Amino acid sequence: MKFIHTADWHLGKLVHGVYMTENQRAALEQFVSIVEEEKPDAVVIAGDLYDRSVPPTDAVELLDEILFKINVELKTPVVAIAGNHDSAERLSFGSSWYKHSQFYLTGKLTNNFKPVQINGVNFYLVPYAEPGVVRQLVEDDSIHSHQEAMKAMIGKIEENLNPNEPNVLVGHAFVLGGQTSDSERILSVGGSGCVGAELFAPFSYTALGHLHSPDAINHEKVKYSGSLLKYSFSEAKQRKSISIIEMDEKGNFSHRYRSLTPKHDMREIEGHIEELLDPNFYGNEQVDDYLKITLLDEGALLDPINKLRQVYPNVLHLEKKINLTDSKRKQSYIALKSEKKSEIDLFEQFYTDMTTSDFTTEKRDVMTEIIQKVLREEGVR
Amino acid sequence: MKFIHTADWHLGKLVHGVYMTENQRAALEQFVSIVEEEKPDAVVIAGDLYDRSVPPTDAVELLDEILFKINVELKTPVVAIAGNHDSAERLSFGSSWYKHSQFYLTGKLTNNFKPVQINGVNFYLVPYAEPGVVRQLVEDDSIHSHQEAMKAMIGKIEENLNPNEPNVLVGHAFVLGGQTSDSERILSVGGSGCVGAELFAPFSYTALGHLHSPDAINHEKVKYSGSLLKYSFSEAKQRKSISIIEMDEKGNFSHRYRSLTPKHDMREIEGHIEELLDPNFYGNEQVDDYLKITLLDEGALLDPINKLRQVYPNVLHLEKKINLTDSKRKQSYIALKSEKKSEIDLFEQFYTDMTTSDFTTEKRDVMTEIIQKVLREEGVR
Repeated sequence: MKFIHTADWHLGKLVHGVYMTENQRAALEQFVSIVEEEKPDAVVIAGDLYDRSVPPTDAVELLDEILFKINVELKTPVVAIAGNHDSAERLSFGSSWYKHSQFYLTGKLTNNFKPVQINGVNFYLVPYAEPGVVRQLVEDDSIHSHQEAMKAMIGKIEENLNPNEPNVLVGHAFVLGGQTSDSERILSVGGSGCVGAELFAPFSYTALGHLHSPDAINHEKVKYSGSLLKYSFSEAKQRKSISIIEMDEKGNFSHRYRSLTPKHDMREIEGHIEELLDPNFYGNEQVDDYLKITLLDEGALLDPINKLRQVYPNVLHLEKKINLTDSKRKQSYIALKSEKKSEIDLFEQFYTDMTTSDFTTEKRDVMTEIIQKVLREEGVR
Repeated sequence: MKFIHTADWHLGKLVHGVYMTENQRAALEQFVSIVEEEKPDAVVIAGDLYDRSVPPTDAVELLDEILFKINVELKTPVVAIAGNHDSAERLSFGSSWYKHSQFYLTGKLTNNFKPVQINGVNFYLVPYAEPGVVRQLVEDDSIHSHQEAMKAMIGKIEENLNPNEPNVLVGHAFVLGGQTSDSERILSVGGSGCVGAELFAPFSYTALGHLHSPDAINHEKVKYSGSLLKYSFSEAKQRKSISIIEMDEKGNFSHRYRSLTPKHDMREIEGHIEELLDPNFYGNEQVDDYLKITLLDEGALLDPINKLRQVYPNVLHLEKKINLTDSKRKQSYIALKSEKKSEIDLFEQFYTDMTTSDFTTEKRDVMTEIIQKVLREEGVR
């Protein structure tokens, strides 16, 4: 039995003010091609299909279209749960009808812990839920943390679980603890938001969503697929992929990744503006990637964002690195704090910080005159 | 072939700050019972299933539940379109899957004007659309009004319509023109929002939504079902019902109403507060109806809303009728507009309006003293 594990599509996501929909469409079209090629027995989506409870309408249309292609056109069973970004109730609408064509969608957690069976594998669907919701559902007042909630739900599942069959849990949670780590320690560090990986021991495979890197934990049987795309610059160095699992009737499985190539990658580059605008440099670059650019120039720059956008149309974030270890500057910053300075001294400091030139006596004289004129006109002195 | 025509459920509706969901649930449960009893071949819902594009989650859950009962449990085909209150895109999600079980939902208008065929009847689904949307869709720049848009769409439908078969149009529009009226005249009065009933001549029956009264037009073949419930006090005197249509293979039909009894009716009552709070009066009243109360008392009343709510818990609106035909008051109102009055004169007027007593010289003296004291303390005089 072969299934694909994916999660965290975050349709409708806005990154630095830019909708990712076009990029998401391109990635999902690749995904559909992989489904066509791999012909899995199921596609598992472990939560956060949308980025928010009320996604924009084009995200709604995109999800509808992609799931239709996979489930109806390619006749692939789909198993999906709501993540913390989805609205469980809104996502659930219509799910009773989807079962016809083996599209199993669990938005809202219920106390039906029966599995969905596909080709001999039992899929247990555990959508994201707050501990308070689980507390009410299983009627156990001692539940206050995600760890306790997950433990209780897995307890319910175990009541009817046949350990001799291949069992897969599909969940959306912040799971910590590789196979070599001490989960006790991790839980005491991680706090109530985390769930220890050891809870998933009853399952042949645990298909997780929530953390965006497929390398978020290093566990033999408990795995994140990672998100569809990079959704922040902190993910710039993460690989993005989907997982292909082939499982035998005893629950033993092989696991491999297939990477997704984004239409626009999300990257960070760093340099002096002159260098970045030099065709010898950007000639080798994917200039339309989503970029965070860090400028190393020390002086003031005239409208750097627009200059950069002429070469790199998708600059999402621009920042300047100011080296504060330079002793002169360090001193001047400290000085700024401790004394009340005259206008001319403040200007000198500003000029020195913003340019690489010296603030000569001539410059000082010109500026002094201007300042005095302004102050006179304003009637300050 | 028998079908039920309903429309304008407006799930998630808030009336004077009160969610109608509980009332809507009760009405829809009655509706389900009628479906169970009548065993129609189809249920037609002519738009405005929800009250807004992003309905509250309990409205989403209610719609899901009711449609599941009708379509899946009772195995009744459902034909539904989006109205102007629905989000076409959000409502459309999943509609490809619903067709499995003969649940035909058209949210967004497309240029597929093919009918849905159920038991020999062709249902043409025309969801609400702005004229601009239709203009683009049918590529006709001359379309600017709803009349022109509907005419163009019906033109498209007619290209493949077989007039010898029973044809039903399901639409959501502001349709005017009974069979006896001059539709030309109506259109010139009604403006661009209206659609003339004569456009629907090619159809055996036109199942409309938008106007909330089943009596909104008086036409043999073009009909509104009216809304599920009364949704404003302007509808207080309207009857609320669903329509049962039985149609033969030539498109001839019989039409009857089945009324829905709301859990809480929406009514207007009028009287003096003393009378309304008298058990002899309210003993015969459905005190928990949604009420608009008009008080006829002339004097000032101390906290009338809370007194009334002890008897009538669902007062949604309270107003007082002031009889301005009384010549003295009329005069004083006019006076108020035309002169600048002293504080004491303004108070006298207020006192006279609010009470039924005379403003005696003693009262005037006491009040004058108070006013002067206040003005002195405030340093005004």
